[in-house]
Amino acid sequence: MGTPWSHRFAQRTRSIKSSAIRELLKLTQRPEVISFAGGLPAPEVFPVQRFQQACQKVLENNGPASLQYSTTEGYLPLRQMVANHLQRYGILATPDNVMITSGSQQALDLIAKLLINRGDRVLVEAPTYLGALQAFNVFGPEYVTVPTDHDGLRTDLLEEALRSGPKFMYILPNFQNPSGVTLSLERREELVFLSDKYGIPIVEDDPYGQLRYEGDHIAPLVVLDRVNLRRDNGYALGNVIYLSTFSKTLAPGLRLGWIVAPVEVISKLVQLKQGADLHTSTFNQMVAYEVACDNYLDEHVKLIRRVYNERRDVMLNALDEFFPKEVTWTRPHGGLFLWVTMPVGTNCQELLVSAIHENVAFVPGDCFYPREGDGINNMRLNFSNATPDQIREGIRRLSIVVRAQIEKNEPVAVMA
Amino acid sequence: MGTPWSHRFAQRTRSIKSSAIRELLKLTQRPEVISFAGGLPAPEVFPVQRFQQACQKVLENNGPASLQYSTTEGYLPLRQMVANHLQRYGILATPDNVMITSGSQQALDLIAKLLINRGDRVLVEAPTYLGALQAFNVFGPEYVTVPTDHDGLRTDLLEEALRSGPKFMYILPNFQNPSGVTLSLERREELVFLSDKYGIPIVEDDPYGQLRYEGDHIAPLVVLDRVNLRRDNGYALGNVIYLSTFSKTLAPGLRLGWIVAPVEVISKLVQLKQGADLHTSTFNQMVAYEVACDNYLDEHVKLIRRVYNERRDVMLNALDEFFPKEVTWTRPHGGLFLWVTMPVGTNCQELLVSAIHENVAFVPGDCFYPREGDGINNMRLNFSNATPDQIREGIRRLSIVVRAQIEKNEPVAVMA
Repeated sequence: MGTPWSHRFAQRTRSIKSSAIRELLKLTQRPEVISFAGGLPAPEVFPVQRFQQACQKVLENNGPASLQYSTTEGYLPLRQMVANHLQRYGILATPDNVMITSGSQQALDLIAKLLINRGDRVLVEAPTYLGALQAFNVFGPEYVTVPTDHDGLRTDLLEEALRSGPKFMYILPNFQNPSGVTLSLERREELVFLSDKYGIPIVEDDPYGQLRYEGDHIAPLVVLDRVNLRRDNGYALGNVIYLSTFSKTLAPGLRLGWIVAPVEVISKLVQLKQGADLHTSTFNQMVAYEVACDNYLDEHVKLIRRVYNERRDVMLNALDEFFPKEVTWTRPHGGLFLWVTMPVGTNCQELLVSAIHENVAFVPGDCFYPREGDGINNMRLNFSNATPDQIREGIRRLSIVVRAQIEKNEPVAVMA
Repeated sequence: MGTPWSHRFAQRTRSIKSSAIRELLKLTQRPEVISFAGGLPAPEVFPVQRFQQACQKVLENNGPASLQYSTTEGYLPLRQMVANHLQRYGILATPDNVMITSGSQQALDLIAKLLINRGDRVLVEAPTYLGALQAFNVFGPEYVTVPTDHDGLRTDLLEEALRSGPKFMYILPNFQNPSGVTLSLERREELVFLSDKYGIPIVEDDPYGQLRYEGDHIAPLVVLDRVNLRRDNGYALGNVIYLSTFSKTLAPGLRLGWIVAPVEVISKLVQLKQGADLHTSTFNQMVAYEVACDNYLDEHVKLIRRVYNERRDVMLNALDEFFPKEVTWTRPHGGLFLWVTMPVGTNCQELLVSAIHENVAFVPGDCFYPREGDGINNMRLNFSNATPDQIREGIRRLSIVVRAQIEKNEPVAVMA
């Protein structure tokens, strides 16, 4: 008899990098840890009562249909609601341009399936969303990275990167994960211009767009793309695939996101989604529709903005108060994250181990770069999940290990 | 400015076969059509009231947690419940061997991601589940097919196929989709023996195992594998990955399935699932647990068996009464489907067009073969979704186009 399969398993399968976030999320479950590691919404603001009413309504009026298989594109009233909502921001989508996904993460998986063949280049911001790298990596891309600063992607470095022929660009323009920075209007226009000039499509990921706490709304790439090209037949000809989600405005536990794209792109994505999970939960789509309807979601988002704005301010104030002058951080105008830069030479993976001893957690910056070693002196801090008191206390704890690390590193810095 | 991306889209993306089932499902929505095409459960038996109670209980007791992000492996009490239930059938799984998936379809996608590199061989039954082919095709496998007869996979032809070195075998032992046939115990033992001899793992897909209407339960491959190898440390060393789902026993609209596998395989699948959709809906997992607990699911499955058994009998009787003698069909002991064989030379895609004119639908057999043209004289009929009266009327309508097709074909048969 042969060796059992599982013994030879490692040799037979593709290599998969272990995920730091996954291990970290486990730590956040220890109650004594104040975690800035996840990207979790504040559980206090979930509209639980409204969900109770919605579940009853769906099951009373549409019981069997809500529990049955449904179409891969998604629940039509929900797609219509998404399209209507997007039109407010100038995105001329119809329901035919909208596919519901099992969270925005699935959108990234389907786009990777559609576009990436082994060895294809993908252009990403550096740093970029870890989950996008995880989704893309399965299909074996090479990455072309363009750095970001406080105005987002450095478009002055973009044209050279585009000449290397990436299959698409993956861009988070608003309150980027992990850096918290927002792409300026000028750079958005430059980005869209270059996308069109080189014929390289943009995947615009916008999970946090509605969570702005200061400053004015800036037009999404998908809108600038249309304006730029003076297309008068609406959305159908764009260079941009636009992604968003209910995870940050309603509840991530439903796993509901959406893709907005030209109909011919949606049609291919629908076929891929059919192979991936047939369709997204019928029940959750109907419940989300009932929760969100009658403009409830707009009102609810106002509450979320108030809560997260306060938490962001508490974190920024605590950083000002407790952190040493050698450390810098971004001051996001919205979203869930800010980005801390430690002195060069700091290893934030080591710092995390010390932080965990102090019962505080974050994600080391190197997780957000495709190239090993980049971002090792950065950390991503989430400010949406912990309460204001926890945030202040967590930053105080973190400052202890940060100061200790800097003192430990100083002799090395002098020698260098 | 360049041509908009969407215009060049067809050239830039992988080719994706259009899905016959998808187009067909659209037809089933016309109320005048009696559809045997889908694989939909009977909506009358969904336990809507129990769902209402479960939703209330989850939101009252676990509101914020049920709406929050959760672990990729799935909700621990649900994994424990699945493991307990499987032990009844001799499958020695612990919760660590169980990962919850977004429907069984996602399990197929993740397994394809894990195991298939472009050009790898995958061994499938001929015919086999269309959705598996859709999930696998994205990763560019070559197929090795082994035909089935009324006792399932022809294991006498298996060894030669295994010598071609497939990466894994995909097998549906119980009431197979599409054929309705069940793999005999002798062949299961032979299959497991050869799997071990050649070191080729088996993916055992068992969505319908609990829906047996006659005959005795036959041990799953995952159990025979363990017994065969006299492994005394339980499940951890198996050659079999076992898949099942709540879609056929509870409700498909929740999109809840599961994978049972050695822990080292689960660990890799968890990483891939994280990239695919982070995790399956927390809320749906908690609701399914509440619906299924206290042995409710066992009682509910008895009801489903009664209802589907009657519908199968009504379909078999109607086929006996209305169909001409040149046509044969399988007599499944369980599940949702039976398989009709028309005389050689019949084109069931053409037949479907005629059938739709008579307001009745089915899936043409060629959808279930990886090689084009195979199964063109077959059709898959579903007997779980339509009511007994509709089934009888639908088979009567179908018999009209079947007879017309046979009469049309006869001169050709004489000439041949």
